[in-house]
Amino acid sequence: MSVALVGAGPGDPELITVRGLARLRECDVLVYDRLVADELVGEAPAEALRIARDDFKQQDVNKLLVMHGRNGRRVVRLKGGDPFVFGRGGEEALALAEAGVAFELVPGVSSIAAVPESVGIPVTHRGVSSTVTAFAANDVEQLDAAALARVPGTLVAFMAGAVVGRLAERLIEHGLAAGTPAAVISAGTTEREQVVTAPLGAIAVAARELPTPALVVIGDVVAVRAELRALRRSAA
Amino acid sequence: MSVALVGAGPGDPELITVRGLARLRECDVLVYDRLVADELVGEAPAEALRIARDDFKQQDVNKLLVMHGRNGRRVVRLKGGDPFVFGRGGEEALALAEAGVAFELVPGVSSIAAVPESVGIPVTHRGVSSTVTAFAANDVEQLDAAALARVPGTLVAFMAGAVVGRLAERLIEHGLAAGTPAAVISAGTTEREQVVTAPLGAIAVAARELPTPALVVIGDVVAVRAELRALRRSAA
Repeated sequence: MSVALVGAGPGDPELITVRGLARLRECDVLVYDRLVADELVGEAPAEALRIARDDFKQQDVNKLLVMHGRNGRRVVRLKGGDPFVFGRGGEEALALAEAGVAFELVPGVSSIAAVPESVGIPVTHRGVSSTVTAFAANDVEQLDAAALARVPGTLVAFMAGAVVGRLAERLIEHGLAAGTPAAVISAGTTEREQVVTAPLGAIAVAARELPTPALVVIGDVVAVRAELRALRRSAA
Repeated sequence: MSVALVGAGPGDPELITVRGLARLRECDVLVYDRLVADELVGEAPAEALRIARDDFKQQDVNKLLVMHGRNGRRVVRLKGGDPFVFGRGGEEALALAEAGVAFELVPGVSSIAAVPESVGIPVTHRGVSSTVTAFAANDVEQLDAAALARVPGTLVAFMAGAVVGRLAERLIEHGLAAGTPAAVISAGTTEREQVVTAPLGAIAVAARELPTPALVVIGDVVAVRAELRALRRSAA
């Protein structure tokens, strides 16, 4: 395979997959996202060409991958989380297919479950939630808030750090209870991880000082975190 | 940590995380699910005690983890996918916390995105879908089909292999177009992977011979697979 689209996982560098790390260690060219851990960028061979993706528009990233792939170089495109979960991996795959460049997809641990898990929140939990809906919240006014307020189970909002107040407002307007447990998690699974929990109606104020990027989790599963902490304290 | 709840990933053994494999290679006791790859079970030390989870009820699994954890043994509880995505990891975490046994969560690559990705379907795709809803479909008559038919974006149904016809029927009854692209993927990411695509109204008949366990994907993103294949053919 000449180009591998590799998921780096949610932040913690040890959460890359075994195959992803193997591809990284044998690449000639590494094109990486800003949010990828430095430790992973450091796993590429010393002589590999390293290209930070943030200096380029998506179309130019596609061209870079095609160009280096055509030259027969082993290219790794390293993305935060999973390439196909808000990662624009589909666009890169289509560009490579169109150019006739062979490629491989190496999935990664998405933040969907791993970031809530890191703070003790299971996105599904027997008797509490058997559905999880993940969505990109940055374009908050365009969201179908009525449908999201109605879907059962857990909501996980990506790119929501800057709009958490407006997101909560819209969901509550459409019938989601203001008392629904919510959490904002910043830099999940890394050493800089921070988490704030509050009822949905109060989450924006409670989390106002958390740095982005942040993931927002809404639903009764958020309460499992408090249950786990209480049990651990009483057992200690 | 005395007990690690580890996600094995979606099937392909190289899709376990680097940390998950490290825990597995140093464990004294391994409690594993039936669906976990033999190669991973084989990564535990030769002298480790291996316990197949399927011989026990969930409550007894919890007791096993607590018992071995209390004895100070390094226990790995290896689950398909991610421990907190339809994996009952939350229940095991609560049982361990209640018993005062230290534990660690090591997320895994969930099938949510990785299994569709393995057949060229991105669960999110720019201009097509920015929402993905995953749910357990086994109890198909209890699903809130009205809410699921209305939520935008991609649907991913777990444990749906045996009920795909009834699931499609219920979603269509509640307004999801019978022409919505759908896919059934059996044994995703493994050598036994099989996939069938068809419009939602015809998917049950088209996929009737696929073995379980199977994942069902419903939404316009399914059409990206055909687009990728057509581009690859014309470029070849």
